[in-house]
Amino acid sequence: MKRTAFFISDGTGITAETLGQSLLAQFDTIGFTKLTRPYIDSVDKARAMVQQINTAAEKDGVRPIIFDTVVNQEIRDILGQSDGFMIDIFSTFLAPLEQELSSHSSYSVGKSHSIASSSNYMERIEAVNFALDNDDGARTHYYDKADLILVGVSRCGKTPTCLYMAMQFGIRAANYPLTEEDMERLQLPAALKPYKHKLFGLTIDPDRLTAIRHERKPNSRYASFAQCEFEVREVENLFRRENIPYINSTHFSVEEISAKILVEKGVERRLK
Amino acid sequence: MKRTAFFISDGTGITAETLGQSLLAQFDTIGFTKLTRPYIDSVDKARAMVQQINTAAEKDGVRPIIFDTVVNQEIRDILGQSDGFMIDIFSTFLAPLEQELSSHSSYSVGKSHSIASSSNYMERIEAVNFALDNDDGARTHYYDKADLILVGVSRCGKTPTCLYMAMQFGIRAANYPLTEEDMERLQLPAALKPYKHKLFGLTIDPDRLTAIRHERKPNSRYASFAQCEFEVREVENLFRRENIPYINSTHFSVEEISAKILVEKGVERRLK
Repeated sequence: MKRTAFFISDGTGITAETLGQSLLAQFDTIGFTKLTRPYIDSVDKARAMVQQINTAAEKDGVRPIIFDTVVNQEIRDILGQSDGFMIDIFSTFLAPLEQELSSHSSYSVGKSHSIASSSNYMERIEAVNFALDNDDGARTHYYDKADLILVGVSRCGKTPTCLYMAMQFGIRAANYPLTEEDMERLQLPAALKPYKHKLFGLTIDPDRLTAIRHERKPNSRYASFAQCEFEVREVENLFRRENIPYINSTHFSVEEISAKILVEKGVERRLK
Repeated sequence: MKRTAFFISDGTGITAETLGQSLLAQFDTIGFTKLTRPYIDSVDKARAMVQQINTAAEKDGVRPIIFDTVVNQEIRDILGQSDGFMIDIFSTFLAPLEQELSSHSSYSVGKSHSIASSSNYMERIEAVNFALDNDDGARTHYYDKADLILVGVSRCGKTPTCLYMAMQFGIRAANYPLTEEDMERLQLPAALKPYKHKLFGLTIDPDRLTAIRHERKPNSRYASFAQCEFEVREVENLFRRENIPYINSTHFSVEEISAKILVEKGVERRLK
C-alpha cells in the first residue's frame, strides 16, 4: 500500500520532519511517500497545501498523514479542512508544558531553528571551518584547539563524521588518516602522540572499504581488497595496542557514529 | 529561574532533542540547561539516568522536563520513577497512528536515524564529497552533475550551506565565489553561464562580512568595510541584472537558508 505523508511547518519543517520520520519508521510494512513543506506561512500557501493534500488523498485512495508544527491558528484551521489525518505536534505538548512551567507559550513561528534563538552561530561556523581546515591531516598544529581527533584509514568515514559533529554540535573535530607508513612503524604518528586523550578511532569492514575506494580510484592498488584488509587489520591492532577507543562505521549512520563518539568520550555538545 | 531539560533516547536522541528544543523555544523567559542523553538502552543506564535527573531536580529545586523517545517499556518504567516531568513522545502519537494506519508499530529501537532504514547512505556520502570537491570554485567541470550552485562573495556562508544541504538532503551543491574581477567584468563568469538555472545567490550585510573576514585575515584590505561594501553592492547588482534568485544570509541560520533555497528553486530532497 502506498501512502503519502506531509511534514508541514511555517518554519524550516525540521521538527515536523524529524518527528514524522521517527514515527513512520515504526511502520515498516507501509511504503510512504514523504514530502516536506516548509514556510507554509500564509493563507494562500495553506490553501495551495490543501489542494496538494487532497490530490494525494485521491491518488492514494486513502487520506495522507500530516505532521504539522504550524503555530498560526488561521493556517492550521485551513489545513484542518483538508482530507488529511492531522498529527498536531505543538498543540499536543504545549498545553501540558504550559501548566508544568507555569508559563505561557509565546506561540512564535520558527523559533527553534532560527539564528535568533542561538548565540551559537559563530561557534558553529567556526567548528565547520575547523573541520575543513583540519581535514585529512592537512594541518596538525591546531590539535591543541580540537575537541576530538578522529583517526582511521583513508575513506573510512572520518570527514563526514567531523562535519556532522561540527554542524550539529559545534564540536571542533580534526581528522588524521593513518597511512601505510604509520602502520609499518607500529606506532602513533608523532603529531598525534601529545593528543592521545582526544583520539577516537574509526574502522570499517574491508569489503565496504574496497567498494568505496573503487568509486574514487577504480582498479588501483589503493582500492584492492588485499590492501584494504591489510590496512584495516593493522589499524585495529594499533587502536587496541594504544588503547584508543574505536567503532566500526560499516553499519552505522553518521548520526549514530557521532552520538556514540560523544557518549564514549564524555564530550558535551557546544551548541545548546 | 533555572530549569533542566533532558532529551533521552535509546537511539541517537535526535528526535527527542529536536522536538524538545522546538517546544522549549516557545518558553523564552525560562533559562533551560539542556542535556541530551542518547543510547540509554539498558536497565543499568536507565538507573544511572534516574540519579542524574534526581540530582538536577534537587539542585534546581524544581523537577526537570524529560523528553523521551525510549521504546523499551522496562526502561521507560524506570525513567518514570524519577523526579522528572515526562513528555512521552512516542507513546503519545503511536496509538493514534496505529489506528489510522490499521497497522502495528514495530516498537523497534533507533529506526529513523539508522543506516538500515536508509538506502540513501551512499547518496549522502556522495553529496558530501561533491560539496567538498566542488567547494569555492575549485572545480567547475562537474557543474552538469550539480543540483544547485551557490554564488556569492567570499565568506558569505556558501560552504556551510552546501555541506548542510548535502548532509541533510543528499543535494549535490557546488559553490563559486564571485571575485572582484567578476564584478568588474559586469557579467557572469564563463563557467557559470551554461548553468544559470542552477544558480542561487547568497548575500550578506557588509558589517557582518567585515567581522567574519577580520577573523580570517585581520586588518587586510580583503576584510576592510569599504571592500566588503563594494563587493556586496556589486554582487547584488549582478544578481538583479541576471535574474538570479538570492537571499541575505545575515539573519538566517544554515537550516533556514537551506530550506528557503529548496522551496525557491523547487528542488526536492534526495534523501527520503
